[in-house]
Amino acid sequence: MSKEFYTQIGTSTSDTEKFRMRGKDVLTEVLGEKSFSETFYLLVTGRDLPQNHIRTFDACMVVLMDHGITPTALVARMVYDSLPEDVQLPMIAGTMMVGNKYAGTMAGAGAIYKAGVTHDGDKREWAAGIVAEYREQKKFIPGYGHPYYSPTDPRADRMFQIAMEGDVRGEYIKLAKILGEEIEKSRGKPLTLNVTGALGAVLNEVGFPVEVMRAVAAVGRSAGLVGHIYEEMQNPIGPAIVDFINNIEYRDPD
Amino acid sequence: MSKEFYTQIGTSTSDTEKFRMRGKDVLTEVLGEKSFSETFYLLVTGRDLPQNHIRTFDACMVVLMDHGITPTALVARMVYDSLPEDVQLPMIAGTMMVGNKYAGTMAGAGAIYKAGVTHDGDKREWAAGIVAEYREQKKFIPGYGHPYYSPTDPRADRMFQIAMEGDVRGEYIKLAKILGEEIEKSRGKPLTLNVTGALGAVLNEVGFPVEVMRAVAAVGRSAGLVGHIYEEMQNPIGPAIVDFINNIEYRDPD
Amino acid sequence: MSKEFYTQIGTSTSDTEKFRMRGKDVLTEVLGEKSFSETFYLLVTGRDLPQNHIRTFDACMVVLMDHGITPTALVARMVYDSLPEDVQLPMIAGTMMVGNKYAGTMAGAGAIYKAGVTHDGDKREWAAGIVAEYREQKKFIPGYGHPYYSPTDPRADRMFQIAMEGDVRGEYIKLAKILGEEIEKSRGKPLTLNVTGALGAVLNEVGFPVEVMRAVAAVGRSAGLVGHIYEEMQNPIGPAIVDFINNIEYRDPD
Amino acid sequence: MSKEFYTQIGTSTSDTEKFRMRGKDVLTEVLGEKSFSETFYLLVTGRDLPQNHIRTFDACMVVLMDHGITPTALVARMVYDSLPEDVQLPMIAGTMMVGNKYAGTMAGAGAIYKAGVTHDGDKREWAAGIVAEYREQKKFIPGYGHPYYSPTDPRADRMFQIAMEGDVRGEYIKLAKILGEEIEKSRGKPLTLNVTGALGAVLNEVGFPVEVMRAVAAVGRSAGLVGHIYEEMQNPIGPAIVDFINNIEYRDPD
Repeated sequence: MSKEFYTQIGTSTSDTEKFRMRGKDVLTEVLGEKSFSETFYLLVTGRDLPQNHIRTFDACMVVLMDHGITPTALVARMVYDSLPEDVQLPMIAGTMMVGNKYAGTMAGAGAIYKAGVTHDGDKREWAAGIVAEYREQKKFIPGYGHPYYSPTDPRADRMFQIAMEGDVRGEYIKLAKILGEEIEKSRGKPLTLNVTGALGAVLNEVGFPVEVMRAVAAVGRSAGLVGHIYEEMQNPIGPAIVDFINNIEYRDPD
Repeated sequence: MSKEFYTQIGTSTSDTEKFRMRGKDVLTEVLGEKSFSETFYLLVTGRDLPQNHIRTFDACMVVLMDHGITPTALVARMVYDSLPEDVQLPMIAGTMMVGNKYAGTMAGAGAIYKAGVTHDGDKREWAAGIVAEYREQKKFIPGYGHPYYSPTDPRADRMFQIAMEGDVRGEYIKLAKILGEEIEKSRGKPLTLNVTGALGAVLNEVGFPVEVMRAVAAVGRSAGLVGHIYEEMQNPIGPAIVDFINNIEYRDPD
Repeated sequence: MSKEFYTQIGTSTSDTEKFRMRGKDVLTEVLGEKSFSETFYLLVTGRDLPQNHIRTFDACMVVLMDHGITPTALVARMVYDSLPEDVQLPMIAGTMMVGNKYAGTMAGAGAIYKAGVTHDGDKREWAAGIVAEYREQKKFIPGYGHPYYSPTDPRADRMFQIAMEGDVRGEYIKLAKILGEEIEKSRGKPLTLNVTGALGAVLNEVGFPVEVMRAVAAVGRSAGLVGHIYEEMQNPIGPAIVDFINNIEYRDPD
Repeated sequence: MSKEFYTQIGTSTSDTEKFRMRGKDVLTEVLGEKSFSETFYLLVTGRDLPQNHIRTFDACMVVLMDHGITPTALVARMVYDSLPEDVQLPMIAGTMMVGNKYAGTMAGAGAIYKAGVTHDGDKREWAAGIVAEYREQKKFIPGYGHPYYSPTDPRADRMFQIAMEGDVRGEYIKLAKILGEEIEKSRGKPLTLNVTGALGAVLNEVGFPVEVMRAVAAVGRSAGLVGHIYEEMQNPIGPAIVDFINNIEYRDPD
């Protein structure tokens, strides 16, 4: 094969001479040395996660791990019932749902903040411009709005607090708040900066790339679904669901 | 709904009064307090991962995260090319492959060791019995054998070392070695205790349940695949693959 | 690439000189000439489906296409709600559930009948042997037993009738009935030959390979789920489900 | 449950009194009476597919069933190698790739033609408007353009021919051609009306809903992938692929 095709992620299984990942020896520099989140960060970015950002990045990985019997958990549990032998299958069935509609807002918000930080001029003017632009296109600004939490989402507040305690520079977080203020100015009342918006800002603070930002939610939720699958093995809700759907009436055409 | 259906994993999204997970307050007792691996362990088992086992469990989560351009990475990269908008989709396509054939050996080995530890009599006799039983059924004992590594798999050695440094009791690890010795006695030459066998033993040492043990591999690989997807965005190998498969000849029937 | 790697399925997209499938010209010998089921049969087996078996094979493809709001339909509908943009995703999420637990019985029954037909001796003795073997291993014989239908499954009866009307040889169907009689003899009461058992026999009659037999169920259900997804777009049951699961109580540990 | 939730697709498995689908008795009015494509059409639309459109709809279902060792076939084959026990899993892994990037053009084209047919004024003016609109937004008009076929895609030509032979009204096909002429006028040279564009028009002609149009491609490809999986069982290309990817070089960071 032409030399132009190569990878910088890791060595292949057929190479027993060395076991490397992103320039490090896996046995001595990764195993026992780095946590899951640190290794994930290294693998994706090719950089070491700074010590002071470990706590923040772990919080990002954890905050969307679970929220009880969500539709993703329901799907994982139902798929488990049909495919009880391969635990990864119910897990991925639920994880596939962490898509554009939900996690997409994370990357959407992250992309807006990233553009804003590189914007040269006045940040408040920039934010007002974004608000005007979305209003004109009649689209929602990703990361703002929540059906239950108002005026703030306590998870977003906590994420910002943890990040600031880790000495991030804070420019994305500041921008997220400015944008929130401009949204409020434009509509006359506040719109909650939600947890996915907060994640868009905080993941930028720790240098995780916008292009795969939503994977943080997907990996976290994958892990969370394992808890549901294990509970379903022992204390199933599947029978309640099946009973419920069996009672949905069939109607012949009118 | 009847009160018999309930969950002990976490509160639902519609409950904004509290945000709990396995009896803990997520905002104050999980976020900023627990790492990804600790939270995953808590969510699945309902117990706190002991401090001295954190390093070991992280090593388990990390050891199968990547191994270069494997078939799982190839699949994730090809799916990314067709579905570039939803990053979780290539991720789950690769992760679904972490199934019976590969990760199944982890749980298989884990189940054998678990049975062995609760076995009352002499452990060496127990091991010899297992060897005889599998030989009679002409089946492989899960966790032993490797196409390249011999006499030991350096990843297995390292996993055991890390676990012992974390003051695990060591009974599953000891059993894994005894079983390896009995296999050697039976066939007249050693058979490598491989990394999935080691994981079966070590995850038992830290109390992770056998029933969802292979999920450790699946969550780890999910994370690893994100690295491949991000690299594919920037330095794709997809075109090399497409070029290769376009040259596979079609033949009319003979 | 070495000449040993080749395909006999079809020409590649990069070949615009010809568009062939299993030795036929797609534009003139497939499009407008063959139905979906005939083309599927050709693609898998490399043989033309005989005219007198078209009706039978279509019935096999159709009989498991739908059964109302099953767990597969529920999963497809929930995944649609999260991923409304890519219709194939809810479809595949439901289809992945057509696995070992359900469709596996089809292939399991099919394999038993296939072995029975090639068996040289007396067929009733062969059947009694199968019954004894499964009884000893405390396993169920795939294709027999139904929670609601007794003594016969009307779908199985109808499948056999259609097949016989198509002049199949009937040897697998006969064997399925003999096996049922031996099961009854052994347990003292009848055990319903169910629709998956019937499919195992009938698909053998039309020469569809046992190894991919359950794909008939998977392709059929894929199509059926599209109906559910389209209905969910217009008359959703998702909100009822979400409402139901939001009421599943969370409990802190005891 | 409140009476407002119901389905019109089919009766549930727990109802053994009747087995109905879209107002028909499955045993007597579907099995043995309707082909796969007819049943699929009925299930999705709630209407019977007219006799003269059966051949056309079958052609739509078949035209994208296979195109040799495509990326979808490669993915199915690789997933089969990891999950050899559950045939539906490699099938769905390949099918998930029939998404926005490829099949999306079908629905995109279909939606444009549907809007055009209900447009009151002059159709050529309408087409010129579409061309201008896409040009201004610097977007491609879905259904036009092909890397190899020019000036026409023989598959599109054949699809139109089959449809016209089935006495469709032809208004969507005519519109597809007018739009192609306006595209040519605008860019000064022709742009091939491709097979997905043709499908968008023809599926409208037979009344298949735009919202799930791309499912026709997904179901068809599902079936086609079964052929690849079965061939992979007998004459695998997997080893060639694994050999190829094992030779992709790993590089430490610069």
